[in-house]
Amino acid sequence: MSLVEKYALLPDEIDRESLKMVEASLPGSLSLSGNERYVVSRIVRAEGDPQIALDVSFSPGAVDLGIGALRDGAVVVTDVRMVEMGISKALLKSHQVATQCRIDTPEVAARAQSEGTTRSVAAIRELAPYLNGSVVAVGNAPTALLALLDLVQEGKALPRLIIGMPVGFVACAESKEELAAGPIPYITVHGRRGGSSAAAATVNALLSLIDQKAST
Amino acid sequence: MSLVEKYALLPDEIDRESLKMVEASLPGSLSLSGNERYVVSRIVRAEGDPQIALDVSFSPGAVDLGIGALRDGAVVVTDVRMVEMGISKALLKSHQVATQCRIDTPEVAARAQSEGTTRSVAAIRELAPYLNGSVVAVGNAPTALLALLDLVQEGKALPRLIIGMPVGFVACAESKEELAAGPIPYITVHGRRGGSSAAAATVNALLSLIDQKAST
Repeated sequence: MSLVEKYALLPDEIDRESLKMVEASLPGSLSLSGNERYVVSRIVRAEGDPQIALDVSFSPGAVDLGIGALRDGAVVVTDVRMVEMGISKALLKSHQVATQCRIDTPEVAARAQSEGTTRSVAAIRELAPYLNGSVVAVGNAPTALLALLDLVQEGKALPRLIIGMPVGFVACAESKEELAAGPIPYITVHGRRGGSSAAAATVNALLSLIDQKAST
Repeated sequence: MSLVEKYALLPDEIDRESLKMVEASLPGSLSLSGNERYVVSRIVRAEGDPQIALDVSFSPGAVDLGIGALRDGAVVVTDVRMVEMGISKALLKSHQVATQCRIDTPEVAARAQSEGTTRSVAAIRELAPYLNGSVVAVGNAPTALLALLDLVQEGKALPRLIIGMPVGFVACAESKEELAAGPIPYITVHGRRGGSSAAAATVNALLSLIDQKAST
């Protein structure tokens, strides 16, 4: 018998089974709305680790604000291609939601050099025309999140939701504290963890919730 | 002062500083060669979590075999686009290494349907012509790793290294145990954790080590 047969599940079964296992694994101390719990489950599944649930944090009503924004066709702006690639093409298509990312363009490389900054910062500045009314998902660089918060502070950007989940050791936890202290609704993973998979899983969760009844 | 200025570091400084912080954060119990330790550091940085170091496992000499394979221009086969996107374009170019991924092609969608399996399984089968002599990086689906091990078992594929880091709750830990019990050199993250970022970080670490002196 092949290994695929030995462990075989159909795609739908994997999906159902894994969300059931995730649900059973979540720490008992979580106090969340139904929709928040669903988002946390998707992040836990994407990370393969229930412990990350304890670090996920929502500003009041952030999940429902995000669902509403995407239902209205808000653009999803991502800091890196990994986040963009992790978002379900089928869900984007079915809800007519577009994504925007600039990290690997020649314009951003030139801007980073001329402004003496990282490509992550330059990519967010380059995306300024798309930020108003958008859902921004940051899954890689703390500097991208900081650059976004600067644009908000300067009145140059007003996203409807920031999914702020950069990962790393330098200025990462701090960038999330700045996000939580700011005026924009947010979903974050406090501390050093986060990443493209967590950010993409959050967007996918919100897109999936568009078609479901609101739960609280 | 802007937040970018407040926390500002130049790209090179972020790189240096974060690897220093990662190095200082690694659990003391690790017994690794210099090159293995570098790979673990890159995974820890990509995950923002020193604890994952305890689950990283290498078959004997796997890192040096992987470096050798990439130095020889082995193709890097990935299960999903997120892994492919996470691999440094600059490193690939400088070492003339190509990547292959099929997950989102119409051929794979058709094959998954006709074979009654997941797209992840179908994509690995579709990539069979590229697997001999390749470095395969699995960062998403346990079923992709299982399908790859089946092809190895059937004598249809002989990769030089498998970076087996799927993530999840269903058959994931099991798929890594099957990998470790098999004949192909491997680098893995045991248990449920892993993911595209960890898999891509491992490939980037190996590519980076090509130009460095071997350390043991």
